[in-house]
Amino acid sequence: MIESSVLEKPATIESYVQASVPQFLEELCEWLKIPSISSLPQHKADILRSVDWASAALVKLGFKTEILRTKGQPSLYAERIEDKRWPTLLVYGHLDVQPVDPVEQWIRPPFEPCVQDGRLWGRGAADDKGQTFIHIKACETWLKTRGRLPLNVKFIIEGEEEIGSPNFEALVREHQGKLAGEAVVISDTAMLAKGVPTVSYATRGLVYFDVVVEGPKLDLHSGSFGGAVLNPALVLAKILAAMTDRKGRVAIPCFYQDVAKLTKLEKKMFSRARFVAKEIEAVAGVPCVGGEKGYSVVERVWARPTFEVHGLTGGFHGEGSKTIIPQRAGAKVSMRLVPNQNPGKIVKSFERWVAKLTPNGVKVRVSMVPGGGPAFVEDLDQPVFQAAFRALRRAFGAEPVFERCGGSIFAPEIFKRAYAQTPVLMMGFGLPGENAHAPNEWLDLDNFRLGIIASAYFYEEFANKARNK
Amino acid sequence: MIESSVLEKPATIESYVQASVPQFLEELCEWLKIPSISSLPQHKADILRSVDWASAALVKLGFKTEILRTKGQPSLYAERIEDKRWPTLLVYGHLDVQPVDPVEQWIRPPFEPCVQDGRLWGRGAADDKGQTFIHIKACETWLKTRGRLPLNVKFIIEGEEEIGSPNFEALVREHQGKLAGEAVVISDTAMLAKGVPTVSYATRGLVYFDVVVEGPKLDLHSGSFGGAVLNPALVLAKILAAMTDRKGRVAIPCFYQDVAKLTKLEKKMFSRARFVAKEIEAVAGVPCVGGEKGYSVVERVWARPTFEVHGLTGGFHGEGSKTIIPQRAGAKVSMRLVPNQNPGKIVKSFERWVAKLTPNGVKVRVSMVPGGGPAFVEDLDQPVFQAAFRALRRAFGAEPVFERCGGSIFAPEIFKRAYAQTPVLMMGFGLPGENAHAPNEWLDLDNFRLGIIASAYFYEEFANKARNK
Repeated sequence: MIESSVLEKPATIESYVQASVPQFLEELCEWLKIPSISSLPQHKADILRSVDWASAALVKLGFKTEILRTKGQPSLYAERIEDKRWPTLLVYGHLDVQPVDPVEQWIRPPFEPCVQDGRLWGRGAADDKGQTFIHIKACETWLKTRGRLPLNVKFIIEGEEEIGSPNFEALVREHQGKLAGEAVVISDTAMLAKGVPTVSYATRGLVYFDVVVEGPKLDLHSGSFGGAVLNPALVLAKILAAMTDRKGRVAIPCFYQDVAKLTKLEKKMFSRARFVAKEIEAVAGVPCVGGEKGYSVVERVWARPTFEVHGLTGGFHGEGSKTIIPQRAGAKVSMRLVPNQNPGKIVKSFERWVAKLTPNGVKVRVSMVPGGGPAFVEDLDQPVFQAAFRALRRAFGAEPVFERCGGSIFAPEIFKRAYAQTPVLMMGFGLPGENAHAPNEWLDLDNFRLGIIASAYFYEEFANKARNK
Repeated sequence: MIESSVLEKPATIESYVQASVPQFLEELCEWLKIPSISSLPQHKADILRSVDWASAALVKLGFKTEILRTKGQPSLYAERIEDKRWPTLLVYGHLDVQPVDPVEQWIRPPFEPCVQDGRLWGRGAADDKGQTFIHIKACETWLKTRGRLPLNVKFIIEGEEEIGSPNFEALVREHQGKLAGEAVVISDTAMLAKGVPTVSYATRGLVYFDVVVEGPKLDLHSGSFGGAVLNPALVLAKILAAMTDRKGRVAIPCFYQDVAKLTKLEKKMFSRARFVAKEIEAVAGVPCVGGEKGYSVVERVWARPTFEVHGLTGGFHGEGSKTIIPQRAGAKVSMRLVPNQNPGKIVKSFERWVAKLTPNGVKVRVSMVPGGGPAFVEDLDQPVFQAAFRALRRAFGAEPVFERCGGSIFAPEIFKRAYAQTPVLMMGFGLPGENAHAPNEWLDLDNFRLGIIASAYFYEEFANKARNK
C-alpha cells in the first residue's frame, strides 16, 4: 500500500488529476496517432497496434489483459480484481475509429493529434479512445492516491464499434462469465452542452443499406437514348424521395407500427432539455427543420425513428458536362430505430417498399450493411443511475441531465441480452460539435479532466451503493 | 491532272476506296491516338496536336488550311477551290473527343486504337474523328481517281464540340464570308441500323446544369443530428424526383408550352422507323420504358423533350458504412429540347421550379454549364436532301431513311442563324451501340468504307443539283 508522506497533504483525486493532465495528454496522443480505422481493410494492423497500446497502458496499472479474438477485429479485455467479495464494474470502450475522408477538410492531419484552444484535436479524441482513456486514468488516479481501486474493474475495449459491432455479441456470449459484473459503464456519448453533465439511458437502433439501381448495360448517350431508356439516377432519386413524406415522416409502410410512445415522465424530462435544439443549430449552422412535424427537436432526435441518406454516387460528376444516362447509381441509406421497433421487420418493410417503388426497366439491389441492431432503453430507477448522478454532480458542480442518445451504440443492447439483470449506463464526456464522425474531431480539455474525476467518483459511489444493497 | 494509265482500267471511286481501306485505317489510328479531350484542361495541348494532324492531312490533298482561334479551343479551316463558279460545300466535323471515364471499363486502352471484329476501336473512332476522316478520304478519292473535286470543298473542324460548342457561333460570325457555301454537310450522327443509310434533318437542343444542395456547415453524425437537421442528399433526391411525373413527363411548369407538334408527314415517317426501338433495346439491354407515356419510342427520342440525371455525388460511398448527414450533395442534369422550345425560357422555368422545391434549412445552387442551345429542324424539301438520298442509295444499295436526331449538335443551329438560306444536312455513318460517349467506342468498318464512297457520290450529286438549279 502506498502511504502518502506525512509532510505533504495527501493527494486527492482532484489534485492528482489536475497535476497529471499534461502527462495524460501526452500519453493519449500516442494512442491517437495509431490510425485504427476499422472500416478499411488496409488498417487491420493498426487495430492490432491500438489493442497493444491499450493493453500496455493497463498492464502498467496492474491489470491482467487478454486479447479476445473474433471473426473480425479483436477486442481487449483487462481486469483488476481487488477483492472477490467486492462489486465489479465492467467498463466498455472502443479502440477503433471512423474513416477520415474528406481528408482535405482537416485543418490538422487526423492522426497527428495536438492540443490547442482548450481542445485535444485528432481522430478518436472523443470517439472513443479519449473517453476510454478517461477510465484508464480514473483507475490510475485511484491507485496513485489510495493504492487500490474502490471496486473490481474490468475493461472490454472493442475493436470494431465503428463498423457496427458485427462480432461483439458473439464475443460477449463466448466470454460471458469473464465479463460479468454488477454494472456496465460506457463512455462513448456526448454531454448535452458544456457544463451539463449527462447520463444516457437509451440509444437508437440502426439498419444500414447499400441501394444500387442498375439500368442499361452501359453508360448511354443521353441524346440518342433519352426518352427511351429509364435513367437509373433518376429512378434512385424517386426511390429515395419516396422514403419520407411531406411531414418529414418515414413513408415506409408499417414503419411506425411498433414504435414505443414516450412516458409522461420522459415527455417532462425532454421538455427540460429544450436547449438541445440551440446546441444542434450552433454546431450544424442550419435551423432544426429536419424530421417529423408535430414533435419537438429533442423528441425527434432522442425518441423518433428516422431515414437518412449518407451518400450518393453514379455517373459523371467531374468538371463541366457529360451527357450520359448512367449505367447505375447508388446510395448509402439507414434508418435509426427506437424502442420497440424490430430491425428484422424494418428490413423486410424497407425491402418490400423499394421493390414496390422499382419500375420495369431497372434492377434495384438492396444489400444490408452488417452491424445494425435494435434500440436500447434502460430503466432509470436503479442504484447505478443514482451513483452516476452523484458522481457527476460532485465533479462538474452542476445538476446532471438524463438523456436518450440519438446515435446507435450496440454494446448496451448486446450486454442487456447477455446479462438481463445488469444495468448499463452511458456517461459520456464528448460535446455537441466534437465532429465525432467528421473532419476535425476534438475533445474538450475541461471535460477530459472532469471526466476522469467524475469516473473516479463514480467507482466509489457505485461501490457504496452496491455494498449497501 | 492525273491521267490513269492506259494499260489499267481507270480506278473508280469504289475500287479506289476498297483498295485503300487498310492504308486509310492506319492513318486514322494516328489521329485517334491523340487524346484530344476538350472538357479536361490538361488535354489542351492535345487539341492543338489534333488540329495539326488534321491540317497536315488536308494540306497533303492540296487544301489551304488555317487555324481559327477562339476564346476556347481552336478550330481548323481548310478549303480547296476548284473553280470559283462551281458550287461550294462546307463540311463540318470536330476533332475533340469525350472524356474516357470510367477508364477501367475499356477493354482496350481508349487511345490505343485497333481494328478487330469488323470494327475500329478507340475514343473518337465514331465521334467524330472517324466521320470527319471519311470526308477527308472522300476528297482524296476524287483527287486520286479524277484529279479534281466535283465542286469546291471547305472544311471546318471544330475543337470543342464535346463541351457544347461554346465559341462556335462567334467563330462562324467572325469568318462568315470564308465559311459560306451552298450547303453544309455534317457527319457526326449514327445510322438507324446497319444497312439503313440515314439522313438526319433535326437535332434536339440542350440545357445542362450543376445542382448542388448544401445543408449543415459540415458532415454531421446521423445519430446525433438525424431528425433535427435536413439531409441535403435526401433533399436533392426529392428535387430530382419532382422533375418528372408518373407518366414520364417533365413536371417543370410551362415546360411543354412551346413544343412544336409533329406534322402528319413526320408521324408517318416516324411510324416507318419503328424498328429503332428494337435497335435501342439491343444496345441498352433494357426495354424502352423511359420517357413519356402516349408517345412511340421514336417520337420520344426524336421529337419530345426530356429530363435526365447524368451523375450523382455527395457524402460517403466507400465500402461499408459511415453514418453521416452529408454537408452537401450534387447532381449533373440536363434537358433535351425540341423545336420551338426557347432555352432561355426553359432555364428560367427550371430555376424557378428548383427554388420552389427547395425547403428551408438548405441552400440549392443551380449553375448552368455553358454550351447548350436550341433544337434544330431543317425543311426536307430541298435539293441537297435529294442529292444525299441518291448518293446513299448508290453507295449502300438500300433505301435511305430520314430521321430526327435525339442528340444535340449545335453546329446546325449555329449555321442556320448565320446563313438562313443555306441548307444543313446530317449524314452520319455511326451505328447504335457505337459507345460514342461511353467506354469502348467503335466505328463499323463497312460503314467506314461505304461512308467514304457515299460522301464522294454526294459531292457529285450535290454539284449536279446545284448546277442545274
